[in-house]
Amino acid sequence: MSLDGFIAGSDDAMDWAFAYGGPNAAVDGVLQSTGAIVLGRRTYEVENRDRGGFYGGAWSGPSFVVTHEAPASVPDWMTGTFVTDGIERAVASAKAAAGTKNVVVFGASTARQCLEAGLLDEILVHVAPVLLGHGVRLFARARGRPIKLEKIGAAESGQLTDLRFRVLRWPR
Amino acid sequence: MSLDGFIAGSDDAMDWAFAYGGPNAAVDGVLQSTGAIVLGRRTYEVENRDRGGFYGGAWSGPSFVVTHEAPASVPDWMTGTFVTDGIERAVASAKAAAGTKNVVVFGASTARQCLEAGLLDEILVHVAPVLLGHGVRLFARARGRPIKLEKIGAAESGQLTDLRFRVLRWPR
Repeated sequence: MSLDGFIAGSDDAMDWAFAYGGPNAAVDGVLQSTGAIVLGRRTYEVENRDRGGFYGGAWSGPSFVVTHEAPASVPDWMTGTFVTDGIERAVASAKAAAGTKNVVVFGASTARQCLEAGLLDEILVHVAPVLLGHGVRLFARARGRPIKLEKIGAAESGQLTDLRFRVLRWPR
Repeated sequence: MSLDGFIAGSDDAMDWAFAYGGPNAAVDGVLQSTGAIVLGRRTYEVENRDRGGFYGGAWSGPSFVVTHEAPASVPDWMTGTFVTDGIERAVASAKAAAGTKNVVVFGASTARQCLEAGLLDEILVHVAPVLLGHGVRLFARARGRPIKLEKIGAAESGQLTDLRFRVLRWPR
């Protein structure tokens, strides 16, 4: 995330973020503890366009893409499942596939839907030293009360700052 | 700032932020090193409405409020100056008043104007564990290239995370 709260630029650009890629202990830890991933169709398309796979191709476990309609064809790297019957089904399937490990959610829209459905336990953000000013926001909605979090971790990975929060209250 | 990049809620609400107030080493350090403050009219009105003074009344040094027209009357606590001939004049006056100390800029709009005029050296943000979803953004503009920063400090003050950056490139 940029300091001003964007997780992608306009046109879903991610190049500004990849500039801060490199080794990251928090990301490595997440990969180790992840049993399945859930993401939206838009994130899937961007990952396919820019990186040829999830986590830059480092992820080969179960993945569930929430979409209205599955694509007619998929690239070779895509071994995951397209889920067309809603976010709650996608998360349930991912939890079953993950076993005792975590389910990781990617994408602003999918994460917001999980948050609003009470399905999100934690938020992990890597803050990059850049201001974008426009793009895809970490979280945005027209109304609603603040959602309180509890900071449960903070660490530096070079120029990135890794912040981990527990979600304290669902925005019912 | 909320985790999702808002420095005030809708209607300039600040109550969510004051909940994380308390003692803060970064804020105390800023107060010690500050020689003058520059802010916009909107921030002035909010500070007057909610707190009866800058820094909750803790600031009694020189202050410069950028505005199109000075108000007809001001509250007793307001001993600062209203500047009606632009941001660059306000900053120049503040620098002269600050001597060897820093000039602190308050308010999203004023900070953005300073940034775009090449007048901002550093950004200090206190990240609060909350998602707002709507309100006044730290930084927002319709277009323009990313503004690169360099992280020069990170510290925790309880649930707040204090991040300090140097501005590396002006968005010319």
